[in-house]
Formats: sequence, structure tokens, C-alpha cells
Amino acid sequence: MSTLASIGEFGLLARLLPRLPQRRDVLLGPGDDCAVVRTRAGALLVTVDALIEDVHFRHGWLTPGALGRKAFAVNASDIAAMGGAPRWCVTHIAAPPRTPAATVDGIARGVATAAAAVGASAIGGNLSRAAELSVTVALIGDAPPRPLTRAGAREGDALYVTGRLGDAALGVRQLMRSRSARGVAVARFRAPSPRLHAGALLARRRLASAMIDVSDGLLQDLGHLCRASRVGARIDVASVPSTAAVRRAGIDLALSGGEDYELLFAVPPRRVAELTAASAELGCRLSRIGRVVSGGDIVVVDGGGVARRWRHGGHDHFRVPPHRRGRVE
Amino acid sequence: MSTLASIGEFGLLARLLPRLPQRRDVLLGPGDDCAVVRTRAGALLVTVDALIEDVHFRHGWLTPGALGRKAFAVNASDIAAMGGAPRWCVTHIAAPPRTPAATVDGIARGVATAAAAVGASAIGGNLSRAAELSVTVALIGDAPPRPLTRAGAREGDALYVTGRLGDAALGVRQLMRSRSARGVAVARFRAPSPRLHAGALLARRRLASAMIDVSDGLLQDLGHLCRASRVGARIDVASVPSTAAVRRAGIDLALSGGEDYELLFAVPPRRVAELTAASAELGCRLSRIGRVVSGGDIVVVDGGGVARRWRHGGHDHFRVPPHRRGRVE
Repeated sequence: MSTLASIGEFGLLARLLPRLPQRRDVLLGPGDDCAVVRTRAGALLVTVDALIEDVHFRHGWLTPGALGRKAFAVNASDIAAMGGAPRWCVTHIAAPPRTPAATVDGIARGVATAAAAVGASAIGGNLSRAAELSVTVALIGDAPPRPLTRAGAREGDALYVTGRLGDAALGVRQLMRSRSARGVAVARFRAPSPRLHAGALLARRRLASAMIDVSDGLLQDLGHLCRASRVGARIDVASVPSTAAVRRAGIDLALSGGEDYELLFAVPPRRVAELTAASAELGCRLSRIGRVVSGGDIVVVDGGGVARRWRHGGHDHFRVPPHRRGRVE
Repeated sequence: MSTLASIGEFGLLARLLPRLPQRRDVLLGPGDDCAVVRTRAGALLVTVDALIEDVHFRHGWLTPGALGRKAFAVNASDIAAMGGAPRWCVTHIAAPPRTPAATVDGIARGVATAAAAVGASAIGGNLSRAAELSVTVALIGDAPPRPLTRAGAREGDALYVTGRLGDAALGVRQLMRSRSARGVAVARFRAPSPRLHAGALLARRRLASAMIDVSDGLLQDLGHLCRASRVGARIDVASVPSTAAVRRAGIDLALSGGEDYELLFAVPPRRVAELTAASAELGCRLSRIGRVVSGGDIVVVDGGGVARRWRHGGHDHFRVPPHRRGRVE
């Protein structure tokens, strides 16, 4: 019998997605960072994601407020990846009966605070008893006139990422050793910064041909983008932005660590100059890390110039034990 | 320390709700069946709810398809309670790694099937590993020009319910005895029929002054409506619609059983004639079960004419052991 553990989250999603019927008001159905629906006044983006205890975090790793803020942020990152702006969210909190009321209170206020900080509102929610603590947020956003999807990258496009990769995975490793760990990496795990401003700018100026947020690990998400675009990619490890601490701990944290919530996007050659000129307006660092190639393979070139083909790894909840991700063969 | 078990779900929601900041595009924030937000093209309703294994159902009680359909239906019922029409939903499925892939597939298709049956679309979703199976659906709907809320009932209004109460709770009781139980009650637990047509008609013709769906039990939900409207109510048990099987098993199943997903609404005296004339168009049975009174008490009058004041009971996940609900003192 196939189970989720044997097929994996992405394998199962790929099996499911083409089967769902869609009406004409659905401009983009399942399979991208957000769905896109048409209203008489323009298009909306819709996305949903959850943070679950002992899967995405362990007890004591996040204050209730930080958990609520992060549950909003991981969804806002999906909105950023389409170039949109968050507007309204609803939250479902499931919690064991022994949970302190202050915990639920803190989570709900965390969601509301994070929403308000980017001009959105936490408009409602629900609460259920459950064996484990989880926070599910569904977020609705305004779509840009041309939402950026994972499809659209072409051979020869340059590949860029915002910010820095690997911090969150290093933070998780540090928290696994001690839940009182501190520092930049732990802070980035706890409080990711969805790149809403950068995403909106890239969509508005049509600088990117395809975009995805880096939530499952750079190579994993690059794989999603390449599959949707029917292309391959070549990545130069030396150009992947990361701290010295991440490189000391192992560059795999930056390649496959997950939870970075940065943007990965492809830029047509004729748009590179304009992107470079606009880089100061993005509000974050910008790094060119490789290029789109034909075929479906992802090739990783290390600092010594040795090229290796990358195989499926990254953050797949059903296959890979948490925080043991990534494999470059 | 206050925990969810000591405060209860409704107590905690009441504490949380007034604190959430709202922007001007939020016409109705947390605390009703749905939130209402304003777009340039009209208002949308948004709601979220989850079905969690060992809380809302037990293993073997629902096929994966029925679980998906029910997860959609419980949200559609919230849309019905505002008089709206479902449009788009996103689904988060959390499942243990040992879960058969066919289970997740069946749940996702169940959601999509239920959505399509009422003119809506399942537009996306996400999947996570978890210790227990749960399905969370967030549903967006079109709001009617004047959404019906829980507030607005006035002294002297008549109280009505659609359909029949207590079947689902009887079905749960039968399933607790044998998970191969069959019959009308089990079928109603498995496949509730959200009253979308009736809700939309009541809102469009402005026949109701306040409305709520009966998900937590008639008296519990009546309590929510009364609190929001700052009124009390008097209910005649003899007029509460239920089957002979429910009455034999105990009328508390109809008063406090939960999961009926019928509509409970108040009708101003001057609108009663029009409602009666429209009743054939509602698509379901309609029963007048009592009236709105001043003060905050809910009084239940039994078949012998004995009046008792009702105290908090019904379906509160954190306080009441599942399926042991309701108390008439």
C-alpha cells in the first residue's frame, strides 16, 4: 500500500492536483504558491499553511506570539512569491485542553500583529481541541495585474535569490542542541521576513519570468520552479548567499535547509540590467546564483568547479526526517 | 493557571475577540459565523473550520471522501448562516506518515466534489505531517447585500429552525456503539446539508433579523445569538423538530446535540406572514420553535408546560466530553 511516507508530500500533491475541477473564476488552481481567483474588481490570491508542534517546531522554541507571527509570515511569503499584498486572514488553532489560555491568546495576537504590520487584518478564526498544538492560517491577498507563478522561466534566464539562505536551518540545529540557543540563526528561524516589497516590485515591473518562495530548501524549491517551467538549472554554490556560520556548519544548510522564506526567481537576460538598477529598492540583498538551462536537471557546481546533479531532497514532511535534509550526489 | 479546559472554547474566544485590531475594509471581524470584508466589487465572507480525528470523528466513521465533503459542508454552513454563496476554498490536510495516500487523495477529492456541487471551487491546499489526521478548510463566499449576523434579534421576534435537530448526535451515539451502524441518523452525521438556499433567500428578502447555524447544539447556538443580540429566548420543546428515534433516545439530543448544521433565525412579527408564504421555496422543513424575549435568559418549556432556565452546555470542545452535552436544569 502506498502511504504518505512512501510517496512523499510532493509526490502526492503532484498526483492530486490535476484532478481537481476548476471553474472559470479560478485563474490559477492548486500547485503554485497561491491560487488566483477573479472577482469583478480584480484578482485575489489565496493560500493556506500550518505550523504543527513536533513537525515545524518543538515546545519552547517559539513564544506563543512568535508562533502566531510566524504562522502569518509563512503564508505572507506565499503571497510575496506571486507579487501580491496580504489583505485578510483567518486562523484555526488546534490545542490540547491542558494548553494555557494565554498561549492561545498569544498566538491569536501574534497573527493579528503580523497582519497589521503589513497592512492586513486577522478577521476571524476558530478553535478546536486536538492532541497536538497547531496553527493553520489561510491568507487572502490582492493579486498584482500579472501574478508571478512558478512557470515561465526560460533557458538563459538568470536565477536570483533575495536575502540569505541557511540561517533558519542552522537555527533549528542550534535549538535542537539547546532550546535556549540565541543568535542570528535562531532569530531567523523564529521570525522570517517575507519579501513582500521585493515580490511586489518584481511583479509590477515584470522583471521576473517565474518566482517561488524558498520554504522547503533552495534546491527543492528550484526543482518545483524547474518542473513547472519545464527547464533545468545550474547553480554556483559559491554565489549562494550565506553567513560564515552557515558555511562552517555545512553549505547544505543553505542549499536544502528550508524555512528561509526568501524569494527565488528567474530573470530574462534583457531584464537583468533593469533588475540591477532596481536592486537598491528591493529592501533586501540580491544574489545571482546561477542560470536556467534546458532539460530538467538541476546541476550544482561547487567552489572547485565540480558539477554534480542534484537529486530530490529538501524538506518533504513525509519522507525526510525533519532537519535532516538535502543530498548532493 | 487558566487552561483551555478550565475556561472553555467559547470563554476564550470571547476574551480574544475584542482585542484584534481591524482595518476599515473589515466590515465584520471575528465573532460571527463568518467575517465580512469589503472589496471594490462587493463584500466577501470568509470562514475557517477543521475536522480532527478523535475530536470530531473516529477512525472508520467516515470514508475519506465523506470526511472531505463534511469538512467543506461545515464551512458552507457558516456561509449559509450569513446568507452568502460559497466561492473558493483552500484545504490543509495534516496526516500521520503511515496514512494511505488514497486517504489524502479521497479527502481532497471529497472537498472538491462538495465545492463543485454548490458552484464553488477547491482552489488549493497544503499537506503536512502530523500525529493525528485533520482537515482544515477555509472558505470564501460572496456576501449578500445585507449579510445576516447573530446580532439583530429583538424581543417579540419568532424563532425558527430549518430541517430537523438531533439526528447527527444520535448518529454519533450509534457509531460509538458500532462503527458499522447505519440509518438516517448516521447518514446525517456523515453528510450534513448546509442550508445555502434557505440562508440566501432569508437574507435576500430580509425575512430574518438574526441568524446562526446550529453546529454546537440548538441551545448553545441560541445562546450565541441571544448574547450577540442582547436578548433572551423561550423555546417550546414540543415544537423542536426531531424524529421519533431522537425523541426516544432523549430530546436533549435535539436541544444540545450539535452538528445539525441547520439554520436558527429570528423573524420580526411583521415578516412572519411573508416567511410562511415563502416556506415552500426554502428547500427544507421550517419549524417555529419559540420566541425572543427580553433579558438574557434562555427558558425551555417542556411538553407538560414546565419552564426551566437553560445553563451553558452544548458542544464546547474544551469543557464538555465529546457527545456528552447539554443540561437543562
